[in-house]
Amino acid sequence: MRRPYFPAKGDHPPPLRARVQRRVRFEEVDPLGIVWHGRYPSYFEDARVVLGERYGIGYDDFRANQVLAPIKKLHIDYVKPLRFGEEFSIEGVLHWAEAARLNFEFVIRDAREQVTTTGFSVQLLMDPSGEVFMVPPPFCQAFRERWRAGELR
Amino acid sequence: MRRPYFPAKGDHPPPLRARVQRRVRFEEVDPLGIVWHGRYPSYFEDARVVLGERYGIGYDDFRANQVLAPIKKLHIDYVKPLRFGEEFSIEGVLHWAEAARLNFEFVIRDAREQVTTTGFSVQLLMDPSGEVFMVPPPFCQAFRERWRAGELR
Amino acid sequence: MRRPYFPAKGDHPPPLRARVQRRVRFEEVDPLGIVWHGRYPSYFEDARVVLGERYGIGYDDFRANQVLAPIKKLHIDYVKPLRFGEEFSIEGVLHWAEAARLNFEFVIRDAREQVTTTGFSVQLLMDPSGEVFMVPPPFCQAFRERWRAGELR
Amino acid sequence: MRRPYFPAKGDHPPPLRARVQRRVRFEEVDPLGIVWHGRYPSYFEDARVVLGERYGIGYDDFRANQVLAPIKKLHIDYVKPLRFGEEFSIEGVLHWAEAARLNFEFVIRDAREQVTTTGFSVQLLMDPSGEVFMVPPPFCQAFRERWRAGELR
Repeated sequence: MRRPYFPAKGDHPPPLRARVQRRVRFEEVDPLGIVWHGRYPSYFEDARVVLGERYGIGYDDFRANQVLAPIKKLHIDYVKPLRFGEEFSIEGVLHWAEAARLNFEFVIRDAREQVTTTGFSVQLLMDPSGEVFMVPPPFCQAFRERWRAGELR
Repeated sequence: MRRPYFPAKGDHPPPLRARVQRRVRFEEVDPLGIVWHGRYPSYFEDARVVLGERYGIGYDDFRANQVLAPIKKLHIDYVKPLRFGEEFSIEGVLHWAEAARLNFEFVIRDAREQVTTTGFSVQLLMDPSGEVFMVPPPFCQAFRERWRAGELR
Repeated sequence: MRRPYFPAKGDHPPPLRARVQRRVRFEEVDPLGIVWHGRYPSYFEDARVVLGERYGIGYDDFRANQVLAPIKKLHIDYVKPLRFGEEFSIEGVLHWAEAARLNFEFVIRDAREQVTTTGFSVQLLMDPSGEVFMVPPPFCQAFRERWRAGELR
Repeated sequence: MRRPYFPAKGDHPPPLRARVQRRVRFEEVDPLGIVWHGRYPSYFEDARVVLGERYGIGYDDFRANQVLAPIKKLHIDYVKPLRFGEEFSIEGVLHWAEAARLNFEFVIRDAREQVTTTGFSVQLLMDPSGEVFMVPPPFCQAFRERWRAGELR
């Protein structure tokens, strides 16, 4: 079993999760018949978008609140390939972080629930001038308080 | 021989041309071993960008002059496939138009100068509110006068 | 109203249709905030794939029957832009053709059923050596007979 | 300074390097005006391809020798964004590995030689049945011997 990307700490609220179904498209498959390795950031983003919308921390929320959330790190572990036409799910798992950052883990599973790919991304929350927030901006604070209070699911 | 996309008229200045070299990339090739048909708009754009920069009607010029130039039509004729690693050229040919539009023709040739793909795009020149210009904006007028005077090559 | 891409003839069976829902993804949007024009071949393909699977003339059917169906023409008319997060539908419409070819028309509509994009593709049916079939191969013949008999819907 | 992705060992031959120039294309830029984070696997691949061809361990060599080299890990650290039209270079650095694997490091630099992005990929060398080679196949052995002998540059 692999080492956790973001080790849990005892006093952290449990992570938030969102899952989306997708199907391998023809253009995503390479000459070897498997999904080209460079398509996976796009798969991860689907889960990131769905989770962001569900919990009010998506692109539109960031834009409305003048927050930038650039991706600083992306990591992908390829366990098994996916092939044309396959159904699969992408799960996004948002882990608690004390700093002004978003720690996302991703798990892709095929139609038999076998894990095919895992990975993570790290985003920093910045103001429009590109400075990392010392404390998260208000709408993020509110989001975090609801998360800690167990109001998000 | 195919019918011209933009038939020439006697009193029109000759078209402007720009050519760019490129090579088929792994991610552009589909499971059948040929460039996926949906990659060609990207190839055409390479020639459009190069021609636009050479003659001062590129993205940056449009932005600086608050002109929008959305693509309204795109057409592609696939003559022969391209394969992984192949060298090819993309020629952009800008045809004269009386109206506030850009009529681009494209010709892709392989390393032996065989035509593999042809096509065209039509762009309309609009102001920031999305209205098509009745007369082209000043920087376009200047561009057209130089073109008509034979100063562009 | 636009001229039909594939004019109907009286004795032809009515076209086959399939429709798929999709949502604009972040990576599909350009710096101007609208879907980049080169993403539409991918949207069209989604409808082509769904229709092909529903009626037994999809990628897998072609492969199983050793038929190639390369795209020879693609045309796109951009009516209105799509923006990040928008829901839209893509309708594929397969028109009857006497020759060994597939004539697909596409209509994209936004959430209010406004047409945003139309277009068409033409595919030729070829044997593995790349020769166009003089008569369509057996599984295509069967498909056409069922279509003419009104058994497909 | 960041920790090395692949720490050097004293008795290892120095890494092999290849560098390719590229320019940010319009379709690679997101609504925020910077290269979308998911385009970087494609940039890395450009350097991987160039290095592979220079030293005889590219796609064509693998195919000719019936070796698969799937990517098992990909990691990207985003230091600074790239913008439309920017010139940049991608350097691929192949680090020595004892096992049947390819350890690639990547460094992207802008026109002023500032590092904008770093990352790495790990590939395993497999036979056509998908088994990892216990010892590298002959053409890889030959490549490694020349590398160790200092014949590659």
